[in-house]
Amino acid sequence: MNVLVLNCGSSSLKYRLFDMATETELAQGLAERIGSPQSRLTHTAFPGTHQEAGRTVEEAIADHGAAVDLALSLLTGPGGPVAGPSGIAAVGHRVVHGGSRFSQPVVVTDEVLAGIREVTPLAPLHNPANLTGIAAAMARFPDAPQVAVFDTAFHQTMPEYAYLYALPYELCEKYGIRRYGFHGISHRYIAGQAAAMLGKPLAECDLVTVHLGNGDSVCAVKKGKSVDTSMGMTPLAGTIMGTRSGDLDPEIGLFLQRQAGMDEAAVDDLFNRKSGLLGICGSSDMRDIHRRRKDGDARAELAFAMFAYSIRKYIGAYIAALGRVEAVVFTAGIGEHDPATREAALTGMAERGIVLDVERNRQAMGQALEIGAAGAAVRIFAVPTNEELEIARQTVETLAA
Amino acid sequence: MNVLVLNCGSSSLKYRLFDMATETELAQGLAERIGSPQSRLTHTAFPGTHQEAGRTVEEAIADHGAAVDLALSLLTGPGGPVAGPSGIAAVGHRVVHGGSRFSQPVVVTDEVLAGIREVTPLAPLHNPANLTGIAAAMARFPDAPQVAVFDTAFHQTMPEYAYLYALPYELCEKYGIRRYGFHGISHRYIAGQAAAMLGKPLAECDLVTVHLGNGDSVCAVKKGKSVDTSMGMTPLAGTIMGTRSGDLDPEIGLFLQRQAGMDEAAVDDLFNRKSGLLGICGSSDMRDIHRRRKDGDARAELAFAMFAYSIRKYIGAYIAALGRVEAVVFTAGIGEHDPATREAALTGMAERGIVLDVERNRQAMGQALEIGAAGAAVRIFAVPTNEELEIARQTVETLAA
Repeated sequence: MNVLVLNCGSSSLKYRLFDMATETELAQGLAERIGSPQSRLTHTAFPGTHQEAGRTVEEAIADHGAAVDLALSLLTGPGGPVAGPSGIAAVGHRVVHGGSRFSQPVVVTDEVLAGIREVTPLAPLHNPANLTGIAAAMARFPDAPQVAVFDTAFHQTMPEYAYLYALPYELCEKYGIRRYGFHGISHRYIAGQAAAMLGKPLAECDLVTVHLGNGDSVCAVKKGKSVDTSMGMTPLAGTIMGTRSGDLDPEIGLFLQRQAGMDEAAVDDLFNRKSGLLGICGSSDMRDIHRRRKDGDARAELAFAMFAYSIRKYIGAYIAALGRVEAVVFTAGIGEHDPATREAALTGMAERGIVLDVERNRQAMGQALEIGAAGAAVRIFAVPTNEELEIARQTVETLAA
Repeated sequence: MNVLVLNCGSSSLKYRLFDMATETELAQGLAERIGSPQSRLTHTAFPGTHQEAGRTVEEAIADHGAAVDLALSLLTGPGGPVAGPSGIAAVGHRVVHGGSRFSQPVVVTDEVLAGIREVTPLAPLHNPANLTGIAAAMARFPDAPQVAVFDTAFHQTMPEYAYLYALPYELCEKYGIRRYGFHGISHRYIAGQAAAMLGKPLAECDLVTVHLGNGDSVCAVKKGKSVDTSMGMTPLAGTIMGTRSGDLDPEIGLFLQRQAGMDEAAVDDLFNRKSGLLGICGSSDMRDIHRRRKDGDARAELAFAMFAYSIRKYIGAYIAALGRVEAVVFTAGIGEHDPATREAALTGMAERGIVLDVERNRQAMGQALEIGAAGAAVRIFAVPTNEELEIARQTVETLAA
């Protein structure tokens, strides 16, 4: 069964095609700057095999529909992995926000589309792009079922006392104000990987999972289920990120409006796109920050220290929330590839049984590796995430159910 | 040496008079609803002794100056503890916000007054009231030195990576946007009490101090110094409080302005005065909440669970920040008197060596008591706070230096 996975951003389309009988990746691609004359699509068939063939198309891609058409022509063209649209049995879509309504992946129906549209105020940039991708795929693959897999769904198991904010209860109900959490597809995937490394069912695992990429989030996993996570109603909250502030005194946004003459839109832009590592030191790229640290750049050092400290506090908070933890699991760009961040985030936790093996930590640069010291009470893993494979798996499971 | 301590709110004046040779309290009083026709002042001379004498004056108190006059007439009147203004050697003032400028108590000068005025945008309600109290006391006690003791000062030892927010660095510098923390006088006092109970100098103690009253805050104390605290630029941030929300996704204020048609002032009022325990269940009084919990009120149960959980996460975060902790210390109205909150806040921390002695915890209702289980790695104390005595001590120390 071949499953195509689509992940649409506002001007991008990522796709992967899997043969789910063997979980083999048949092709992957990325269309960027959709809607601009400088758009381009990079496509790789049979990645990682001796048949691997890459192709880059630089041409104007008008919209997500055109991007899906272009991807389809490459997937089904000469030497492509499938003969035509009928070679794709199902399409799985990453949908960022499922609100309180979607706690599971669902086969797309008109009602589901309406439900995704309904929570758009909570994800004004992401959900419309996701809907565009679904519409484009439905038009090209009319016979293949479409499954929506939500980035919020894994966190729908949080208890009420963890997901509610201490605001007037009825106001929160009316506007859907609560913690939803994001990166759920990734947290779910690496929790499963960690369970395999622990050699037991996920439903018996108590974990802290740490996704550090462009956006960052930490998740408390109790018996395989998310019980708390650092992102909130939106992906702005939690740890410090590349350009996002993470947690702030809620008064600061109001203070900036009063004292700095900024309007609500300017504050929103500031918090989401000009803050985080970028705001502190002028760069949101961790490799750049490490280069500058080596040169003795104090501001880069400060940004790194603040970043690591914000992660460390969340790990500590979630150990307290869980009561016990068996493993801490790092993933995504920084989590997989940056030993310095992992080391700084876990500093001073030896009394809690969390001790890195310094050598193994240095070795973990993108592969799955146990990086905790032998004999420590808590195990530590670095694990590559694979959100697309998780979406494909959930697509297959949803259709089987 | 008799020291008068003044703590001015926007419409209230609390005072205490201490004989600092013996740290004996000679008198205390509270003027409420200053500026309204229903104002009143309750005064007690020689509290807790066989000479104790209480008096309530119900009359219009026009302003803080009039309140100081009335207090002075009671302190120096027949049977009062001092013969006249000259019997008061110094006046110590609680000042809420000292910004980044005041990391120590200071003798009040014109420059100090200007400094307190300068940070008023950060504490628009509190600092003006504090200034009024200082002016009134300077007029009545022209020969007594006035000392300003700041509620933020204890936290000025936080490292930069803990007190900065991940916002554009220069913007934060320009507007003084950073974590300041509050309740510093109380955290300092109970840290000292805990050191005494641990039988060693404060400078060797690693503690988590938990102040739970109307406002709540948690503080990480390393070698006697504050290294992090849950309140932020303002007293709105951190754990859930009586009417304050504590931490929120920073996007929520902006969302309410966009989606609920609220302006910045309405959101400010909502976060500070209609949220917290009050927002969740309609009551900000913990005794009331416990009564309703007993009657099976689900919303009161939820409010309590959220409150305790928000404290628990901070304790966990600060244990991670400290690396090691010797004692957790509870204080203030709820912290001293509510065994249920202490128990819920420390749930599931046994693996971290934090275990309550259930019986002793139930006994601790306002007195200083060790409430941790015998033999546990971390000790737990309930300790009454005494911010006025701490202010008087710092006043004496400042004048001696």
